[in-house]
Amino acid sequence: MKIEVPKSKASRLVNPGEVILVSSAYKDKSNIITLAWHMPISKDPALLGIAVAKSHFSYELIKESEEFIINIPGFDILKEVIFCGSTTGRKADKFKESNLSAAKAERLIKTPVIKECLGHIECSLSDVKDIGDHGLFIGEVIYAAAEKDLFGEAWHIDKAKLIFHFGGALFTTNAEKIDIS
Amino acid sequence: MKIEVPKSKASRLVNPGEVILVSSAYKDKSNIITLAWHMPISKDPALLGIAVAKSHFSYELIKESEEFIINIPGFDILKEVIFCGSTTGRKADKFKESNLSAAKAERLIKTPVIKECLGHIECSLSDVKDIGDHGLFIGEVIYAAAEKDLFGEAWHIDKAKLIFHFGGALFTTNAEKIDIS
Repeated sequence: MKIEVPKSKASRLVNPGEVILVSSAYKDKSNIITLAWHMPISKDPALLGIAVAKSHFSYELIKESEEFIINIPGFDILKEVIFCGSTTGRKADKFKESNLSAAKAERLIKTPVIKECLGHIECSLSDVKDIGDHGLFIGEVIYAAAEKDLFGEAWHIDKAKLIFHFGGALFTTNAEKIDIS
Repeated sequence: MKIEVPKSKASRLVNPGEVILVSSAYKDKSNIITLAWHMPISKDPALLGIAVAKSHFSYELIKESEEFIINIPGFDILKEVIFCGSTTGRKADKFKESNLSAAKAERLIKTPVIKECLGHIECSLSDVKDIGDHGLFIGEVIYAAAEKDLFGEAWHIDKAKLIFHFGGALFTTNAEKIDIS
């Protein structure tokens, strides 16, 4: 079961730097992209940035719809994550061709969340800046949620196995927890 | 021994989303900050972004010097990484008070690299945008290097143990390699 994560803690959903799936939708089109290039940018207001190549289908969708959702996949769906990162949404409906399901978001109307993910951050587009060959989409956190058993003050490192992408075909997950408190 | 990493591959040094140490210097002042909020933004030109709180000493230094260096620490220096993340450079000379040593950068003149780190990305400031309560510093990669035994096409996951910050006092490193090729 997923429970709400306060906006002030939403950045912790992506603080580890793990791979995310970004869902977007406009009119009758939707898409999912796999991204490692993202980060929190501001605490108050709660803003996050994602870098999307200008040539990508999601770049158009997010620019039109002015919203996007960051979904955090667990290591168990690595196969789907790789599929979404290696297929263009112009030719494939990734929701139909993967084992991922679209579910109604809590606050956003247009964009679906990916049901199989461990957490979500619903973002309203605050700004977009073209920087080099990518668009930097800055999203304001509207609502965030995570699996109750996997997230408290942060992801429970020993339970929430996230995906980290080192480049090319190389992936890993988190090792055991080090608590320095 | 560290060897040069081509600019086109420099983003892979930070692609995993690991914790970095950013060094900066202006006139007779230098500083080190610990950051999890960073990402590559563009492939060509090779640009990276770091988010630095407006109130931080490094924000001033980087704005004045127009350069910064991303240093990638290994898990063995977690103690120094935590020190640099919990002490202000306004009151402490972090190079003197930690076990970290400043070494001459390859290309940049003002900013030192942190010798004990596994790799470095020397950046010239391309732009800075204030977004919410942080400054987004966009750096163009001028030169990058990494330990020869730890980096090839990407970090060797089984040898290069990076630091991932889940929030608060919670840290971990990378688990074993998954190669999907």
